[in-house]
Amino acid sequence: MKQLILVRHGESQWNKLNLFTGWTDVDLSEKGIQEAFNAGKTLKENGYEPQMCYTSYLKRAIKTLNNILDAMNLDYLPVEKSWRLNEKHYGALQGLNKKETVDKYGEEQVLLWRRAFNVQSPPLDKNDKRSPLFDKRYSSIDPNQLPLTESLQDCINRLLPYLRDEIFSSFKLFDQVLVVAHGNSLRGIVKTIKNMSEEDIIAFNIPTGIPYVFELNDNLEYVNDKFIGDEKTIKELMEAVAKQGKK
Amino acid sequence: MKQLILVRHGESQWNKLNLFTGWTDVDLSEKGIQEAFNAGKTLKENGYEPQMCYTSYLKRAIKTLNNILDAMNLDYLPVEKSWRLNEKHYGALQGLNKKETVDKYGEEQVLLWRRAFNVQSPPLDKNDKRSPLFDKRYSSIDPNQLPLTESLQDCINRLLPYLRDEIFSSFKLFDQVLVVAHGNSLRGIVKTIKNMSEEDIIAFNIPTGIPYVFELNDNLEYVNDKFIGDEKTIKELMEAVAKQGKK
Repeated sequence: MKQLILVRHGESQWNKLNLFTGWTDVDLSEKGIQEAFNAGKTLKENGYEPQMCYTSYLKRAIKTLNNILDAMNLDYLPVEKSWRLNEKHYGALQGLNKKETVDKYGEEQVLLWRRAFNVQSPPLDKNDKRSPLFDKRYSSIDPNQLPLTESLQDCINRLLPYLRDEIFSSFKLFDQVLVVAHGNSLRGIVKTIKNMSEEDIIAFNIPTGIPYVFELNDNLEYVNDKFIGDEKTIKELMEAVAKQGKK
Repeated sequence: MKQLILVRHGESQWNKLNLFTGWTDVDLSEKGIQEAFNAGKTLKENGYEPQMCYTSYLKRAIKTLNNILDAMNLDYLPVEKSWRLNEKHYGALQGLNKKETVDKYGEEQVLLWRRAFNVQSPPLDKNDKRSPLFDKRYSSIDPNQLPLTESLQDCINRLLPYLRDEIFSSFKLFDQVLVVAHGNSLRGIVKTIKNMSEEDIIAFNIPTGIPYVFELNDNLEYVNDKFIGDEKTIKELMEAVAKQGKK
């Protein structure tokens, strides 16, 4: 039996301000740090002990992972970071207020940008300083692979090779693997493992800072999945995330 | 020109209590976290930008590195952790108060245990629960390589293969590499690069949290070295470390 533990990063400075974040490298809020530490405590209390960790190139996920490992006294675990685990790129919406964007473009349009499977937000201009092409952390990556915007489908497509070649491959060596990433890159993992439809994955909201454990058989096929922690908290968090796109 | 940046971890809970630490996985103090963050700020202000990082299996070094990267906005950098960068193992002295140990065994004996090049502290008992043989983090390492005590020479000997095969080899890909580790494992690196005598390396005290930069030519030979930061602070810190073993 193999176990894949997913954790979505805790609250960031921009979650708090209700801004579209995407690939913007925003820090965790104090609450986000506490959420991360609590996720680690919960995992430890429930007897989990991952052997390998993956996260994105973005500070809010990396620091969530660091705090989880700190809480578990597993700081020494190997960690691989990849841009392929980054959040969906939100193009020119990055930095805009979610509610103001709803007021300006209408709830329907914003819901399409936020939740439609294959609709991209308006792209960043090629010469926009915020483009990943100008960010040193992506300098070793083929520029043709770097997005100026992404749909959920685009995000999942660039995630899949990493999920297969790195994360799933690591189960040859390890029985328990931890991935700390973002709402939409984690959707890609959940969709793949549970073979979910486009509609179902769009409607599925992963709460922040709540460990989500998949059990897989030795062929890495889905056996079951569960959230770890207090049931009431999990339900409330999932409802809160679903409400964000509404007026 | 290649640059190797060394940073010794900031103050730990046990530094503060003046206890022998060695391989005990003690956390940073609040001051230690601040030292680490300041080291990162200093590096950033002086234009440094490492591309690859190495640290030990011990929380105080790992968290120092994490805070340096946080301060530099370089959280996404690759990090390799190795037991070979751990502090010198202090055997049965681990957990004892340095001053009380001086009172009991005399300054001369303690100075030998702390500073003689090839004198080991009394070893941990094989069945001592604190032995690395019972610690999961070392489970993938050949038990014959795991120490119950170490002299500085032992510490340097187990460090050297890693220094050669991993850290120096990484200069094939990178121009600037950051190593965050411990007083004695860093002594091993300094001794090797500067080809220092046993006497000289024993007398050489690396201050905590002060970036120490080596410039190497393309054959990875020593060109020069310097501490980065305020000169007065560096001098005071080095004197303070030298005083620890004295009554």
